[in-house]
Amino acid sequence: MVEVLKKTGGAEISMENLLRIFTVPEAPGSTLNRLDNDISENLAGFLQEHIVAEEADLVKIEQDFNDTRIPEVPVFVSEHTQFLLDKVVAQSVHTSSPSFVGHMTSALPYFMIPLSKIMIALNQNLVKTETSKAFTPLERQVLGMLHRLTYEQSDEFYDTWLHHGRKRLGAICSGGTIANITALWTARNRAFGPDRDFPGIHHSGMFGAMRHYGYEGAAILVSERGHYSLSKAADVLGIGRDNLISIETDSYNRICLTALERKLQELKQQRIRPFALVGIAGTTETGNIDPLDKMADIAEAYGLHFHVDAAWGGPTLFSKRYRTLLKGIERADSVTIDAHKQLYVPMGVGLVLFRDPSVLESIEHHAQYIIRQGSKDLGSTTLEGSRPGMAMLVHAGLKIISRGGYAMLIENGIELARRFADHIVTLEDFELVSDPELNIFTYRWAPADVQARLLEADEDTRREINEILSRITQVIQKEQRERGKAFVSRTRLKPECYDQQAITVFRVVLANPLTTDKVLREVIEEQREIAAGMRDSSDMRALAALVRTSV
Amino acid sequence: MVEVLKKTGGAEISMENLLRIFTVPEAPGSTLNRLDNDISENLAGFLQEHIVAEEADLVKIEQDFNDTRIPEVPVFVSEHTQFLLDKVVAQSVHTSSPSFVGHMTSALPYFMIPLSKIMIALNQNLVKTETSKAFTPLERQVLGMLHRLTYEQSDEFYDTWLHHGRKRLGAICSGGTIANITALWTARNRAFGPDRDFPGIHHSGMFGAMRHYGYEGAAILVSERGHYSLSKAADVLGIGRDNLISIETDSYNRICLTALERKLQELKQQRIRPFALVGIAGTTETGNIDPLDKMADIAEAYGLHFHVDAAWGGPTLFSKRYRTLLKGIERADSVTIDAHKQLYVPMGVGLVLFRDPSVLESIEHHAQYIIRQGSKDLGSTTLEGSRPGMAMLVHAGLKIISRGGYAMLIENGIELARRFADHIVTLEDFELVSDPELNIFTYRWAPADVQARLLEADEDTRREINEILSRITQVIQKEQRERGKAFVSRTRLKPECYDQQAITVFRVVLANPLTTDKVLREVIEEQREIAAGMRDSSDMRALAALVRTSV
Repeated sequence: MVEVLKKTGGAEISMENLLRIFTVPEAPGSTLNRLDNDISENLAGFLQEHIVAEEADLVKIEQDFNDTRIPEVPVFVSEHTQFLLDKVVAQSVHTSSPSFVGHMTSALPYFMIPLSKIMIALNQNLVKTETSKAFTPLERQVLGMLHRLTYEQSDEFYDTWLHHGRKRLGAICSGGTIANITALWTARNRAFGPDRDFPGIHHSGMFGAMRHYGYEGAAILVSERGHYSLSKAADVLGIGRDNLISIETDSYNRICLTALERKLQELKQQRIRPFALVGIAGTTETGNIDPLDKMADIAEAYGLHFHVDAAWGGPTLFSKRYRTLLKGIERADSVTIDAHKQLYVPMGVGLVLFRDPSVLESIEHHAQYIIRQGSKDLGSTTLEGSRPGMAMLVHAGLKIISRGGYAMLIENGIELARRFADHIVTLEDFELVSDPELNIFTYRWAPADVQARLLEADEDTRREINEILSRITQVIQKEQRERGKAFVSRTRLKPECYDQQAITVFRVVLANPLTTDKVLREVIEEQREIAAGMRDSSDMRALAALVRTSV
Repeated sequence: MVEVLKKTGGAEISMENLLRIFTVPEAPGSTLNRLDNDISENLAGFLQEHIVAEEADLVKIEQDFNDTRIPEVPVFVSEHTQFLLDKVVAQSVHTSSPSFVGHMTSALPYFMIPLSKIMIALNQNLVKTETSKAFTPLERQVLGMLHRLTYEQSDEFYDTWLHHGRKRLGAICSGGTIANITALWTARNRAFGPDRDFPGIHHSGMFGAMRHYGYEGAAILVSERGHYSLSKAADVLGIGRDNLISIETDSYNRICLTALERKLQELKQQRIRPFALVGIAGTTETGNIDPLDKMADIAEAYGLHFHVDAAWGGPTLFSKRYRTLLKGIERADSVTIDAHKQLYVPMGVGLVLFRDPSVLESIEHHAQYIIRQGSKDLGSTTLEGSRPGMAMLVHAGLKIISRGGYAMLIENGIELARRFADHIVTLEDFELVSDPELNIFTYRWAPADVQARLLEADEDTRREINEILSRITQVIQKEQRERGKAFVSRTRLKPECYDQQAITVFRVVLANPLTTDKVLREVIEEQREIAAGMRDSSDMRALAALVRTSV
């Protein structure tokens, strides 16, 4: 295709023609204009019509993106749009499909699309007020609204700090990973701050800090269900991945507090300074919530920065019915929430909140031409530099969906997950692996006779059966994805009931409000059908043999 | 306004109503639908009509964003849209105006707007192929195209590495800051990698690495014109801001090579390990380019990772006429290019390229449910996690504007800057402070008699005059911005001719293809007019007195 486009020549190149692309709108009726209208009029229809359901092989798709030569002369907009439709849109993932319940990207409210267009047309840069004007106070208001949802401070508190020159209630960024890194960066800089002649870790680095404070290292503690961004944070911050201390979890995937305290004692003896404790509100794999309140006690007792990674579960706070699940979050020093997850905003926006509006000063920076000392430029306390006005979309969500609307969406997801898990328990051929606390849980294909055999088998046989089941689960997941009608993801867990043996499980994430009980039953139906089709595979035969050898 | 919206009640809240926002498009003729169409039909007109020119006081604007209570019930989309129009769009910055020549955000090509809408409607997540499919090879192609532009490797090279499972030609991210951090993160991890029993800095952190390798610290070197993101990088990476070693520049704002070598010797004696040298291709304040080829020699001789921050100047490579200015960039280990600057893509996308496709392995990470070992998921080597499909817009720019088109845009900006600077030299009342090498330069208001006085005055008088001129420049810049017709930015420089005294200067950035010589003359005209209006100010009187005391 690319070759064809090139051969057709493309538009004549001249400064006059170039200026046209900056000044002349796409003609009504042009391919691009048509798509623009189609999306406005019927987004779901557009996606349905243009995305090919059946999955093409990635290696085959790659062939359309092989040419690394930038064309010498322009390709016509219409031709490129046709290429995008045929080769990109067609081969993209239908993330908003009600039967795609395997990832954390859901359907978007309609109003988000034209609002995004306005945001992009305005092309503001939030690094400084000179290129963002009203977007700066708007972003601060968004931070204030979510800060209030989380920390419930007084009117006076918000009146004082919301638009304050030097203080910030948080930072908006491209997503949860940057939010988590920002939080741990402040935690590190505060734990090893200026002290007598020592100018602070931000000036002297990790090595100088450890020497000045007389430690052998610094550590961050989190349960073994912690998101991989934390290990990335430990690496990038110069702490080291080995110093992200992974604490075992109980059978509900929650951090084990006695193991945590034991580890803290151990670190003390090793002269390693733990400076941050991370609680999880909605583990990525199983949707569980750590005992935040008790973790806050421990953080207080040991002088740790308490960060809560609520990238997924934060919006549970909207629900009066379920917000108590997160009790203790209001005691966190910082909290990560992803807006492109359960705030239903398009991809590319997350945020971190700080209980104390002074915390971000520990990473403050300035330059001569922007974010000068004393300015209200938000860029002085963000990890990123130039940033788009995504806050406008979060703002619109909070206003148009409202507290009550978000609560309903959250409750709908939790209750749908509950019903689906309860249904799975009644099935002969599936096994619920992790029970839903929020709207995420795991299960696997495992017929009743196999489950019975697992209960009474010796250790070796049990391991063997579980390994076969893992392979079968993986094949089912992949085959279902390739068929293109439904999608669940898969992960590996080490359930207590199988002596911590790692097993592969299906993982469902139920945040799309268009997903119904019926859709979910069809997902199971298709998985059952795929399993039936594997009847003659070597794994299935081996499994049957292992079940037959039962005493 | 917010209060009014609330009092009007908003939409009734029920799950049925909520589902409507996910399933029912905005009605034709609704406020939002109208704006959507207006932008498609006439973007420039939309911005012209809705953005208020005269600048409102930020404190006044803040009053519209004071409420931190999330509404209990939904605000109607139409009402919220009206609020956005009146309070956000109206009070945003007209970044695409031809007379706004003070920042690095320019006009956007028309086609970028509907394409952005398609990208947002698809809502892909580039962290893994499961949520991005064709977007993953597309992103790799974009990296390949810009890699080829920069490094000009063979067809075999690109055939082998473009879509390789473990190798990457670079990483796309939200902007230049993340790109620079990513580059320096790999540099740090490779300089202190695994060695005998030492598992590498990514496992053990900075402290363990310094101890194992027997250093007293690690350092990054860059000229004093380095972007502030580098100091942020030194902080976040645990190197420390004091270990970002700032090397003096010559009168063309280019790194002084003898000073650089002297510093490298000095660090050696202090047992501090310099691991990265950063060259700048387009300094933020003056648009100058470091002697990259000679820096590459030094980096080679001292075993340093050579990174080039070409966030601004990278696209100069499109121009056959000017690409030689960047000679030596092809020897860099890594190069940062911002797409939302001179690739004319909407805010929020930059990238870093690596000459050697193995470099990114030094920051590789995996998880159980995504970016598994052996997958082609791009998330295994990015600092960010979830990421939007912005690469689609970069891709469209490269195809539709083409090599030839970008070359023309670049050449137009450089030549416009040349003409404008030449014009300023002819003026009686302005002084050119830094001569343009690319399309950025600085100047200030300084009448001929003041300039003459500066030449012959004693040191104290010269300092005093320069301080007064700095204050006047600042007032003119601010007043011009507030009037809203034109915008230049300001910064502080220490020119050699004034014995390194810091002076405030106007800074112009000429990347908007709609900016003409005429527009620039009007900018000067208005500045002259503002200066004339300050006739009776104490600064102007003091300045006149100092000029009169001339011998």
